Amino acid sequence: MRLLYTINFFMNSPEELVDFIQHGHQRYLPHLSIDCVVFGYHDQQLKILLLRYHGQENWNLPGGYVEWQEGLTAAAHRILSEKTQLVNLFLQQFYTFGDSPIRLNRIDIQNNHNKAFAKANVAITEQHWLSNRTLSVGYYALVDYQEVTITPEYLVDDYAWVDINEVPPLSYDHNEILDKALLTLRSQLYQQSIGLNLLPEKFTLPEIHSLYEAILGKQFDRRNFRKKMLALGVIRQLDERRKIGPHRSPFLYVFDLENSNKVLEAGAGVAL
Amino acid sequence: MRLLYTINFFMNSPEELVDFIQHGHQRYLPHLSIDCVVFGYHDQQLKILLLRYHGQENWNLPGGYVEWQEGLTAAAHRILSEKTQLVNLFLQQFYTFGDSPIRLNRIDIQNNHNKAFAKANVAITEQHWLSNRTLSVGYYALVDYQEVTITPEYLVDDYAWVDINEVPPLSYDHNEILDKALLTLRSQLYQQSIGLNLLPEKFTLPEIHSLYEAILGKQFDRRNFRKKMLALGVIRQLDERRKIGPHRSPFLYVFDLENSNKVLEAGAGVAL
Repeated sequence: MRLLYTINFFMNSPEELVDFIQHGHQRYLPHLSIDCVVFGYHDQQLKILLLRYHGQENWNLPGGYVEWQEGLTAAAHRILSEKTQLVNLFLQQFYTFGDSPIRLNRIDIQNNHNKAFAKANVAITEQHWLSNRTLSVGYYALVDYQEVTITPEYLVDDYAWVDINEVPPLSYDHNEILDKALLTLRSQLYQQSIGLNLLPEKFTLPEIHSLYEAILGKQFDRRNFRKKMLALGVIRQLDERRKIGPHRSPFLYVFDLENSNKVLEAGAGVAL
Repeated sequence: MRLLYTINFFMNSPEELVDFIQHGHQRYLPHLSIDCVVFGYHDQQLKILLLRYHGQENWNLPGGYVEWQEGLTAAAHRILSEKTQLVNLFLQQFYTFGDSPIRLNRIDIQNNHNKAFAKANVAITEQHWLSNRTLSVGYYALVDYQEVTITPEYLVDDYAWVDINEVPPLSYDHNEILDKALLTLRSQLYQQSIGLNLLPEKFTLPEIHSLYEAILGKQFDRRNFRKKMLALGVIRQLDERRKIGPHRSPFLYVFDLENSNKVLEAGAGVAL
């Protein structure tokens, strides 16, 4: 299942930015944000999407605020769709962050926001709603970064797909958020159909093997991998091959969605 | 590793309750609570701790608010220790809830709080801080309910350890929170040393088998269970037996903590 989509950020003029800074607290809960770790996979490489706001040196995860009358899951989808135009996304809440010094110290937040929103020429004081302590709910998504077109919003100077092994120091506690997302993704590889929208509907063993190696960040034996994936019921082998050369026609596999849902519902107990 | 502890709730007088209602927003973030699912295990039975506040018909999970300058994890430990006096708890964040109608509709919250806090004789209006939309971060814990002594706070009329299969309709979205906690606990059984403070340091196979059956809510073959737990490296068999009768001296096992940490760090990949 391949999807075509465009990344498109939401604030597009200085007026919208000033309005957000001055009146955002009427629309958004002032203490809660959502940060999205968008993993991008293509051709055996795992990357993440980073943004750099005007005036800031460090890169950021894409994120946003939750509206007063908006469900949390709906907010995560809205924020990411405002940034990606993508709607049927595999979007997974993984952790809520409220421990880092940056999440407790208003002065740090104020300084960071003053840099980020310098274009608006509106001073963010210590009492400003954007200086409030803000906890952040982390969501992750997986997309094919080759199929993404990005149109940055007014505030964003630059964006990049960065290799997971070459991530620079990020703003706020975003490195910690990224690490936790990667840990969660890895721990869920054998419980969920991760890769459903990154692989063709019917895929070969080398294709899913490469995807899992990229996510786990290491190489492992293909035959053991196949044995385990089949034993756990994550994938199913078809009685069908793909012809890729005169002497090469590997078997095709599909995700065993029915079984995956069972595993997810009943926990690891199903495999007993 | 057995622990002895006492449950002891935090508000103990009408004055403290009135102070909380009138001035709580100066101490606590007004939009965020923590709810704790305390699983209790003893003698092959899995239960959860429920409270009933004065004036409310339905039961509740124990919960509380996060202080302005308090880390989220610290808040979870404080809230639960105020209620249990227990400090070195296996406490696990599992999900943040912000989707249910009760989490979006102020009127429902207002009505519920007015019932819960009726003893204080302070009306909670729509503009009151306690009527604000409140998202809740869920944490779960596992304790031995036979070793808990409970001293309910002023507001709590009653408490109970309720069998996991006989949970009544709870207040707010607490049934949803409980379901998600149970799902998470089950899915983590083979990744974490769950049961570490419920079993003796050295335990027999029937002891851990009964614990896992209680958590998964079903029976399964003991020999397959042993094989899987050893293969995944969750437990390790000792060259040591426990004498429980003239002809019965089963082998003892321990949790393989070093390996569990590796599994947790690297995700499921270690088992490949």
